[in-house]
Amino acid sequence: MSENTAQELSKKLKQISVAEFFEKNRHLLGFDSKRKALLTCVKEAVDNSLDACEEMGVLPEIKIIIKAKEESVYRVSVEDNGPGIVREKMSGVFGSLLFGSKFHVQKQSRGQQGIGISASLLYAQLTTGKPGVIISRVHHSEPAKKIEMMIDVAKNAPDIVSEEDVENFPSHGTRIELEMEGEYLGKGQHSITEYLKQTSLINPHAQITFKGPDGEKMVFKRTMSKMPPVPKEIKPHPYGIELGILQRMLARTNSRTISAFLMKDFSRVGSTSAKEILKKAKISTDVTPAKLDTTQSRNLLKSMQEVSLMKPPLDCLSPIGDTELEKSIKNEINAEFITTVSRETQVYRGMPFQVEIGVAYGGEVDSFRLLRFANRVPLSFNAGACVISEAVKETDWRRYHLSQSGGAGSPDAPLAVIVHFNSVWVPFASEGKQAIASYPEIKKEIKLALQEAGRRLDKYLKHQYKAQRDKKRVNTFIRYSHELIEPLTYLTNTKKESIEKTVELFMKDKYGDIVAGDDSEGEEILDVKSDVTIIQEGEE
Amino acid sequence: MSENTAQELSKKLKQISVAEFFEKNRHLLGFDSKRKALLTCVKEAVDNSLDACEEMGVLPEIKIIIKAKEESVYRVSVEDNGPGIVREKMSGVFGSLLFGSKFHVQKQSRGQQGIGISASLLYAQLTTGKPGVIISRVHHSEPAKKIEMMIDVAKNAPDIVSEEDVENFPSHGTRIELEMEGEYLGKGQHSITEYLKQTSLINPHAQITFKGPDGEKMVFKRTMSKMPPVPKEIKPHPYGIELGILQRMLARTNSRTISAFLMKDFSRVGSTSAKEILKKAKISTDVTPAKLDTTQSRNLLKSMQEVSLMKPPLDCLSPIGDTELEKSIKNEINAEFITTVSRETQVYRGMPFQVEIGVAYGGEVDSFRLLRFANRVPLSFNAGACVISEAVKETDWRRYHLSQSGGAGSPDAPLAVIVHFNSVWVPFASEGKQAIASYPEIKKEIKLALQEAGRRLDKYLKHQYKAQRDKKRVNTFIRYSHELIEPLTYLTNTKKESIEKTVELFMKDKYGDIVAGDDSEGEEILDVKSDVTIIQEGEE
Repeated sequence: MSENTAQELSKKLKQISVAEFFEKNRHLLGFDSKRKALLTCVKEAVDNSLDACEEMGVLPEIKIIIKAKEESVYRVSVEDNGPGIVREKMSGVFGSLLFGSKFHVQKQSRGQQGIGISASLLYAQLTTGKPGVIISRVHHSEPAKKIEMMIDVAKNAPDIVSEEDVENFPSHGTRIELEMEGEYLGKGQHSITEYLKQTSLINPHAQITFKGPDGEKMVFKRTMSKMPPVPKEIKPHPYGIELGILQRMLARTNSRTISAFLMKDFSRVGSTSAKEILKKAKISTDVTPAKLDTTQSRNLLKSMQEVSLMKPPLDCLSPIGDTELEKSIKNEINAEFITTVSRETQVYRGMPFQVEIGVAYGGEVDSFRLLRFANRVPLSFNAGACVISEAVKETDWRRYHLSQSGGAGSPDAPLAVIVHFNSVWVPFASEGKQAIASYPEIKKEIKLALQEAGRRLDKYLKHQYKAQRDKKRVNTFIRYSHELIEPLTYLTNTKKESIEKTVELFMKDKYGDIVAGDDSEGEEILDVKSDVTIIQEGEE
Repeated sequence: MSENTAQELSKKLKQISVAEFFEKNRHLLGFDSKRKALLTCVKEAVDNSLDACEEMGVLPEIKIIIKAKEESVYRVSVEDNGPGIVREKMSGVFGSLLFGSKFHVQKQSRGQQGIGISASLLYAQLTTGKPGVIISRVHHSEPAKKIEMMIDVAKNAPDIVSEEDVENFPSHGTRIELEMEGEYLGKGQHSITEYLKQTSLINPHAQITFKGPDGEKMVFKRTMSKMPPVPKEIKPHPYGIELGILQRMLARTNSRTISAFLMKDFSRVGSTSAKEILKKAKISTDVTPAKLDTTQSRNLLKSMQEVSLMKPPLDCLSPIGDTELEKSIKNEINAEFITTVSRETQVYRGMPFQVEIGVAYGGEVDSFRLLRFANRVPLSFNAGACVISEAVKETDWRRYHLSQSGGAGSPDAPLAVIVHFNSVWVPFASEGKQAIASYPEIKKEIKLALQEAGRRLDKYLKHQYKAQRDKKRVNTFIRYSHELIEPLTYLTNTKKESIEKTVELFMKDKYGDIVAGDDSEGEEILDVKSDVTIIQEGEE
């Protein structure tokens, strides 16, 4: 009986294509609702466009058009002025999941795994049965290539429907057009326009134009005309690397000796630290890397973690920077107080990452708002599952004199918090790339940044408060000053006029710079005066 | 320049293996922390074992052993009495991700995508570099096959290290041994023992023995000795199916005519409804399925949704059932009131699903607890991202006279809520399979079940309350009764003794069954009596 069952089962056992997997699990990629699907598609296309433009070093110009077709069906078109894609690779990039250029590269980029855009095409064909249209041109000397394609889901491979050259296209760039089921949201937290607004906040060097299905046209202007420094590709840092990865590197390296391997294949390892690592691991410097057995590899890994090394270089990351971030926030948010904090790079699982945040208090900001970003991409969904939200909730905002019910949760204050996580590899909580997984190293950094910002805000508010109190006190004194004149006249037995003059001069000299009071203050004083008057009457 | 960039980029573009993807994104599969990793590994192995035993129709006997090796390294061994796996497939099942028997099958099972167990092997080799050991036997007439294997990550393919026959193994079944980095938690919400406890609650037909690294031994006894009905494989239901899927089915079907296609390839479509569907879609009944163009397919899809059809059959699902669930809860939880609710099957995205819940109130239950289950598997993590938690929070528990701060969030009551989601395809929020994605159809069903349970609980509590109040009132009366004797004696001018007798008899006759009062009541009465006495004194 068991044998029969085993035989039957064995017939059913088969390999599933990653396209089949994600088609069935489309909610993992952000295609769970019609509304979200439309936003996800725009987001994936814009991510790729921005990355491409930066690879080429050209200031991004991105055109997005969404047209309404039949009921709850839209045609999305996203065009960029990037380098374009050579014809041989066009099919793969858009027609095969897990096909990309960024997966194995230790360098900050928006795209990572080569799923997003082909998944959008997958969703389009799943919901409308229509092929995707891609036009790309790499140089004015060659015509633009236009292909219509579907995805062969069982094979996770492109399936070209038609192909032609088109002349009428900019000298370089790519355009993708997808027709899909969707629901268009004109404005609000999860709207495409809000997403684009945040995208331009975090990408001040990009120019984004948008045409919506209701005929609305928006231009998100470029506010920074120089390209951000292009992040450099780096070797993995020894800290936090895993045994399996190390063993693979040992097996594949071109370096003849283990010490050369450490120096060439990792960042921040010089000859001295290489020697130190190998000494700790009791491995002689000239061993052939591939010859290490599991125990040796484990020892090597262990000592790699123990030897103190420089932090990974920053230039693999592309943070916005204090000044630019502050400027960018000022452009978007009209607040009373704005400050930004950049942390140093840190490492998780061998990956460098860096946290920069901004807080905007008061002014137009009327309640708490959290804007989350990862590698210059706004995160619009799954806030609850994101380490950024966690860090905000776990920060004790009451220490900075902001109210926070129970000392947990978001602060209850007119505060906008912008958190930007930069890394060569963002550990997203799901392929939808809307929330960052909760790694302790990452949470710690975000918290430290929030605390620094909190201290600054607290200082500002304290100062504001003190200034106001001083002003109030002096104003009161100024208002009362004339009450001194009567008694002084009597005591000094001098002419009332000269006393008045003295007091006036004294006040002017001492508090001349202070503009006198506000209304509430005024009223308060008014009462006092009237009281005083009554008393005087009584005395006469 | 653009051309160069395009050329450079094109060199970097390549296909990524799904194993590479999940190795780098291991947190997606529940391997983000050492503690969670250990639990995930056990869970994946146990899921497969239970599925296998049920396929064969044998009552599951599962043995789990966790041994501590060096610091934060454990060896996990899980053995079952299932049908075993034929040698040709062993390597694939454990050595390749997205390799399985359940992905394309419309039938309830624990495993779905053929990722979990090979991912455990992947994590083991990533963290300890050690191969996984698998022993499997399909029949006593053949020796058990033992293989040591790694996974070739770049190829997502098994890499056999060693292979041998072993005689000393039960007549049929499978054992997997993995050595991995981990952290062992002895007890508590996220502990392995708690997971096993819940597993046996939802799988009363399974016998599970556990040996922990601290030498502890536990047996989770079988409380139900008959197998649950084996769920039957069904054809997809027309409701909620997607265009892309429909088109693929049209292209691949063996049916010659479109009406035959509808009847054979879908469940709940008879000749009448087939005709009706095709009439609505304006497609003649004898068209060759493959000949339909996109517009026709869309019309067909549309009318498939509109025609009223029977709900999908229940027998593709394997719910526990009211009685068994209640029995099972009683075994685990000593509560004052227990009730269970089973809903009818419903459909989301063409997939049948069913919700059954239990609530246990009072007794040992001292505060609110939510136990989530999907296809007989306990969900231990990511409660926040789960539609079950959402449904609980969005239920207005105050309608059932339970306190709930702000009418949102979990009720603040001594209440354990058990929710079991059964489906031929559970839409997990991530591959970690710890939370169910929030599909509106699913959330609605859970809410309806919770409301029904809420009403029953409310009724019970009301009754309890009424009974208590009655008892209290009568007790008071009984206590006061002797006060009647004096006045009655006076009014009726009868002997005090006979009045006493009458009252006594009357009380006995009317309220004899009621056990008299509690202390608080007693004290209250005491005061009254002393008052009365005083008054009498005054009168004399």
